[in-house]
Amino acid sequence: MKTPKKIGLFGFGTVGKGFYENLKKYPHISAKIAKVCVKRLDLPRIGHELYFTDNPDELLLDPQLDIIIELIDDPEAAKTYIQKSLLAGKDVISANKKMIGESLQEVSYWHDSFENRFLYEAAVGGGIPIVHTVDGFLRDQEVTEIRGILNGSSNYILTQMQANNWSFEKALREAQLKGFAERNPTLDISGIDAGYKLSILAYHAFGEVPSMKSFEIESIEGVTKEDIKRAKAKRRKIKLVASLKKSNHEIVCSVKPEAVGANDELYSVDYENNAVSVETLISGRHVFAGKGAGSLPTGSAVLEDLKRLLDGYSYQVSKKVRTVA
Amino acid sequence: MKTPKKIGLFGFGTVGKGFYENLKKYPHISAKIAKVCVKRLDLPRIGHELYFTDNPDELLLDPQLDIIIELIDDPEAAKTYIQKSLLAGKDVISANKKMIGESLQEVSYWHDSFENRFLYEAAVGGGIPIVHTVDGFLRDQEVTEIRGILNGSSNYILTQMQANNWSFEKALREAQLKGFAERNPTLDISGIDAGYKLSILAYHAFGEVPSMKSFEIESIEGVTKEDIKRAKAKRRKIKLVASLKKSNHEIVCSVKPEAVGANDELYSVDYENNAVSVETLISGRHVFAGKGAGSLPTGSAVLEDLKRLLDGYSYQVSKKVRTVA
Repeated sequence: MKTPKKIGLFGFGTVGKGFYENLKKYPHISAKIAKVCVKRLDLPRIGHELYFTDNPDELLLDPQLDIIIELIDDPEAAKTYIQKSLLAGKDVISANKKMIGESLQEVSYWHDSFENRFLYEAAVGGGIPIVHTVDGFLRDQEVTEIRGILNGSSNYILTQMQANNWSFEKALREAQLKGFAERNPTLDISGIDAGYKLSILAYHAFGEVPSMKSFEIESIEGVTKEDIKRAKAKRRKIKLVASLKKSNHEIVCSVKPEAVGANDELYSVDYENNAVSVETLISGRHVFAGKGAGSLPTGSAVLEDLKRLLDGYSYQVSKKVRTVA
Repeated sequence: MKTPKKIGLFGFGTVGKGFYENLKKYPHISAKIAKVCVKRLDLPRIGHELYFTDNPDELLLDPQLDIIIELIDDPEAAKTYIQKSLLAGKDVISANKKMIGESLQEVSYWHDSFENRFLYEAAVGGGIPIVHTVDGFLRDQEVTEIRGILNGSSNYILTQMQANNWSFEKALREAQLKGFAERNPTLDISGIDAGYKLSILAYHAFGEVPSMKSFEIESIEGVTKEDIKRAKAKRRKIKLVASLKKSNHEIVCSVKPEAVGANDELYSVDYENNAVSVETLISGRHVFAGKGAGSLPTGSAVLEDLKRLLDGYSYQVSKKVRTVA
């Protein structure tokens, strides 16, 4: 029995607790949480057996820690912690879609330059194992199109408005109470969060970082009761659809509300669920759906990354694998 | 550059050709087809650069071959070839759902006793990466239910009958022309083929082999124009649904036609597409959909197994991994 890897955990919110709860279930996983860095030490917490600190350097400067798991709100701080940890030779797991989506150029530089790994399955599609699937299996199938519902809270809001005639405000409050929406839900609702995730998938599908400036992005706030009535009359549902098309060497991306019919694979994807449909040249269309938000699903995605790290896994995109068409 | 692994290929039909076409696209894969065993040497064939034989022993007794890929119709012969190859210390890939589904007790014995690997991603869900996903990721999420469309040709037939008012006979002929249906389509139509696949998924989800005798299995031949009209009136589609539920230690399985509504994740799964929905305790419901039949999708699943073999992968079920609830 080799000595378990030591984990330094940043953040103990929704996802952090979910990861902690999941990890407890797998005593055979050879890794333990050695230190947890939180903003406020005075809050009452589960996990009394854990060592808590509010000083990031206690984790960043600790040569004993093998793996840093970053699950905090603040993207700037997250980026600093991740960079320092990678430079210190530690493997890093993150769920910070905003930081990763905004910094894909640096992320790809990190992937290309560091031996130690940087994984973030939880950053896209919550519990859906989509990042490493696009990075490996689907990339090899030659991706031509990606289309999906990539934001759990906006899908939850749209579902409640359409299925149960809730007001936008009530649905948003509920999404926040359930921990689907960020404290500041602007990114969820505006479509920008889905844009970050689409960029991350594009990077893993093609090894290229698309410029989000070129994305056509439309918020769900523009969706009126009138739109919903019109869609219902046609037996359609309005979904916030993120879409990517590759023609020749151009990648065209958009995130906008779309009325989808019953034969559309996104029609049955309601509430906090996410779905990603990937069209490939070789094996056709693949659809992956599951819980796109929530403590346990997202926490379990972090746990899956931990297991991959322990198995010696790293993203292929960093190996510049190319297939011959 | 290490010397490429030598493959002995049994069968050069729909799937075999698909595998051959796919493999050609990936020169960076360190494996080559050394010998192909076919029933009839006199047929005109693609792949002139390949060495063809009609003598199985030319492959089975060749110590030079590292990997045997079995893609033939005949389950009895397939089983013999696979057993001999495993005993000879070769890794084996198969797509033979009938043989595997009927022989899961032996298959689990093979998994437990042989160091060399036996993989069969192509045996379930065509191009959908479902076997190793259930075996690894989902098994760890604690599976409670599996539900899906697991037979491409019966789904193709039902779709044509409902969407385009085709007769059962016309749809079946077309499915055979397209290479979705077996030469003898009885297993596809009766639901038994889907039953085999459900058993395979159950084995990987729970490490137990359910007895197919206990399955409730119903053919699609009983589906009348009247049933279809009634379903349409309710905006439903009739699908051949394979279902598994685990309560306590009992596994209950069935395969039967079911009228599903638009909010069901199986509603939008038409023609030769398959879908598998897996409910787990930890991360909730996951849905995987894609092409369930056809030369390239199924051939690509065989290629994915080949890549896994070269990566040193083997099924977890053979390691008797258990999670603590």
